[in-house]
Amino acid sequence: MRGPLTLSEIAAQLGGRVVGDSKTQVRQIGSLDRATAEQISFVAQRRHVPKLAHTRAGAIILAPAMEPLAAIPRIVADDPALYFARVARLFNPRPRCEPGIDQAAHVDPRAAVDASARVETGASIGARARIGPRAWIGAGCYVGEGAEVGEDARLYPTAVVYDDCVIGARSHVHAGAVIGADGFGYARNGERWDAIPQIGRALVGDDVDVGANTTIDRGAIDDTVIENGVKLDNQIQIGHNVRIGANTAIAACVGIAGSTVIGKNCEIGGAAMIGGHLRIADGSRVSAATAVSGSILQPGTYTGIFPIDDHASWLRNAAGLRRLSKLLDRVRALEKRLFGKEAP
Amino acid sequence: MRGPLTLSEIAAQLGGRVVGDSKTQVRQIGSLDRATAEQISFVAQRRHVPKLAHTRAGAIILAPAMEPLAAIPRIVADDPALYFARVARLFNPRPRCEPGIDQAAHVDPRAAVDASARVETGASIGARARIGPRAWIGAGCYVGEGAEVGEDARLYPTAVVYDDCVIGARSHVHAGAVIGADGFGYARNGERWDAIPQIGRALVGDDVDVGANTTIDRGAIDDTVIENGVKLDNQIQIGHNVRIGANTAIAACVGIAGSTVIGKNCEIGGAAMIGGHLRIADGSRVSAATAVSGSILQPGTYTGIFPIDDHASWLRNAAGLRRLSKLLDRVRALEKRLFGKEAP
Amino acid sequence: MRGPLTLSEIAAQLGGRVVGDSKTQVRQIGSLDRATAEQISFVAQRRHVPKLAHTRAGAIILAPAMEPLAAIPRIVADDPALYFARVARLFNPRPRCEPGIDQAAHVDPRAAVDASARVETGASIGARARIGPRAWIGAGCYVGEGAEVGEDARLYPTAVVYDDCVIGARSHVHAGAVIGADGFGYARNGERWDAIPQIGRALVGDDVDVGANTTIDRGAIDDTVIENGVKLDNQIQIGHNVRIGANTAIAACVGIAGSTVIGKNCEIGGAAMIGGHLRIADGSRVSAATAVSGSILQPGTYTGIFPIDDHASWLRNAAGLRRLSKLLDRVRALEKRLFGKEAP
Repeated sequence: MRGPLTLSEIAAQLGGRVVGDSKTQVRQIGSLDRATAEQISFVAQRRHVPKLAHTRAGAIILAPAMEPLAAIPRIVADDPALYFARVARLFNPRPRCEPGIDQAAHVDPRAAVDASARVETGASIGARARIGPRAWIGAGCYVGEGAEVGEDARLYPTAVVYDDCVIGARSHVHAGAVIGADGFGYARNGERWDAIPQIGRALVGDDVDVGANTTIDRGAIDDTVIENGVKLDNQIQIGHNVRIGANTAIAACVGIAGSTVIGKNCEIGGAAMIGGHLRIADGSRVSAATAVSGSILQPGTYTGIFPIDDHASWLRNAAGLRRLSKLLDRVRALEKRLFGKEAP
Repeated sequence: MRGPLTLSEIAAQLGGRVVGDSKTQVRQIGSLDRATAEQISFVAQRRHVPKLAHTRAGAIILAPAMEPLAAIPRIVADDPALYFARVARLFNPRPRCEPGIDQAAHVDPRAAVDASARVETGASIGARARIGPRAWIGAGCYVGEGAEVGEDARLYPTAVVYDDCVIGARSHVHAGAVIGADGFGYARNGERWDAIPQIGRALVGDDVDVGANTTIDRGAIDDTVIENGVKLDNQIQIGHNVRIGANTAIAACVGIAGSTVIGKNCEIGGAAMIGGHLRIADGSRVSAATAVSGSILQPGTYTGIFPIDDHASWLRNAAGLRRLSKLLDRVRALEKRLFGKEAP
Repeated sequence: MRGPLTLSEIAAQLGGRVVGDSKTQVRQIGSLDRATAEQISFVAQRRHVPKLAHTRAGAIILAPAMEPLAAIPRIVADDPALYFARVARLFNPRPRCEPGIDQAAHVDPRAAVDASARVETGASIGARARIGPRAWIGAGCYVGEGAEVGEDARLYPTAVVYDDCVIGARSHVHAGAVIGADGFGYARNGERWDAIPQIGRALVGDDVDVGANTTIDRGAIDDTVIENGVKLDNQIQIGHNVRIGANTAIAACVGIAGSTVIGKNCEIGGAAMIGGHLRIADGSRVSAATAVSGSILQPGTYTGIFPIDDHASWLRNAAGLRRLSKLLDRVRALEKRLFGKEAP
């Protein structure tokens, strides 16, 4: 953690306008609820404004329209959430990658590990693998033969990159993530399943984050592709030959079946399940816990969640749901009798 | 495995009343279906009573009301399931943690590992980490800088605890679990996402079980907290700043989005999905496969599952569901014509 | 990768009838979209026929009925998908397991590792474990005390097999998979939960594939059993005492709760959730994202998915769903008034 900064020092680096005592010193970010006098917090949404009266933060970041609502020293910024992210980075820079290959790491003599890279204890780097400048391979990681890890990328402990797969520059792969395991591809052979060799790769672009225990399968023939800037939360499963467009963000527990193409700038809610061989338009939003079984050709927000209810009510309504098609028929019959025709 | 015990020896240790030959010896627990004469089984539910006639178990544990239904030697206990759990533990004590640091483990010289702790091969313990008395760190585990593992806790092979996170006393973390990876926190920056440093910790209390491949993210600013006695099954995902109250039990594949607070003594069914920023009252029950998108303020059992059906019936009813709102309008129109007003 | 083969050389090994220049050489498989002149592709479904006009593949595999639709050299086979799988295996044989125990692997002196097996760096093999002929234990894997890995089986890096569990011959367990962690078994003890020792094993048969980060719990008393030829995709969770019948295929993200018995030759779609203590008949199909809360006694295809819709329409229909039971009552009232009785 760095030393304290005054509000004017922060504004000098990041912009924004200081209101109140610009010599106020802070040394860390804090939440509205728990910040201390040495911490700076932020308000981005109207619903958090009431907390301003009670916060003990030393300073606050807020939008121009909210500026008069705070009495403590403050920085006014057009996008308080983004400004806060930058202040957070200022006080919490990513740890520097200290170069070196641990003596208990296993590096194949045919691998190319940059002199500025770090390979921690128990990690294994296969033949012909390439580890870029300042790349950081955590304890117990595995980087297979011919795989590549780009500059400033980081694999957290136990992450696995199978043979020939690629992790782009500045990408982060969290613990337990598995990149490039075999896709689920079989041909029926009587009652048995014959495995089809999965010879494509998994290509993860630059500035991608991959959450803990997320899995990205290698392609069957062609490659599975995660484009630049994609953010993947934990426990996501991405099938073979999926392509995910740039800057799409996907929350935890999502599954994407094989060969589906998701556009750029999409947002997929947690635990959504997306079927195979679909196309999802750029800029689409899928709500949490929604099953997507057809392509989405027009951007928009799409939802399909069974509404939660107390168990007894659910039982009654779920029973009705099984008779819904017949209910429609009954209403049609009523309409014919009463109106002489079905409603449009 | 210990030697055999007679029923009277068991009752002397655990209480309960022996009926039949109290010198009957058993050496292990067994299921009603497959137990042998050297094993003791139990019946806790009426629906298993018919199996009593066929079991080959040497003895049985059951409730007072069921006692006359068995002919074999038996132990009568008020809570047969709990009694059985204790007998099971009697015959199957947890393996003793044999102290020692494997020569192929990596322990930072600034870490504090208790002399009675065990660190297996390939494990990595970071600077300033603290490993408590009789704590057992399995093969290939990672305990980050400044992290703590409490007394008698156990990390199974490949479990990962990120920097500064805490595992309480007697807690068990199964293989592949990841504690303290970064929460999913970004600020929009045009089309890109700027990562917000996640500086909170993940704090796991005492007597907590964490299942295989479960992930618990560290907090964004404040901490993610799992209170004492919580039981987490496999492949659960817990987002940043979630708090889970004491003794809550969560079945496998559940996802809990960020900042949600779950009360004490709740039971969450498998594959339930709980949205972010919600509150779930103490003692609530959520059914399996249910999506929770709003807070639950009154304890009770809550459900939201699309009822399964044969595919053709489902197709018809699902089509009707998409027209349900219009169907309501049509019924209203019928009611107005027929009754002169809409039904209440 | 092997050298090139002519179509007649392929047909000599695998059968099928060559049409066009049988001396055409290919050296790899390719997709219809991206294959080059040195690659062979296939068409199994009518909807891919239009691509035949544009493919640059050097040769194509197709069914007799489609043979006249292609102009390029081709192999006619009764089951093009299965034939393609075989050609794929011809050009991409599984890598040979080079025997040897890495000096940085940890093998207990009481373990029995076949001389033809391979144990990679950082792997740990417990006491009394048995590693069969040509079995391949990847980097950082853990094989517990008394566990067995059959001949020609492969554990990819970081896979974990707990004590006493069994992986059959020719089975593949991908990275991050955990076989045999404790099942989720507790007895209520007041507000607390007492863990019930899980003394059963997890038995994985022959020719089984286990995907990345999939978890298979050990049995509570009896064993959890995965029969021969089962194919499990990534991130599947299988609870204690589940039994899965031979040649059943399960797509990613599926959860199966404890003690459920799934028959042979079933197909379970991705993210389906199957409750505990159920029976699923041989040959059943469960659609993706479907929750199964009762037994399936007749084979067939079963589905339960809330249909996705634009968010506004979903909101309206979901609100209607909460009133569905009352709507049925209202329709009954209309019917009684209009018809003198409820519709059948």
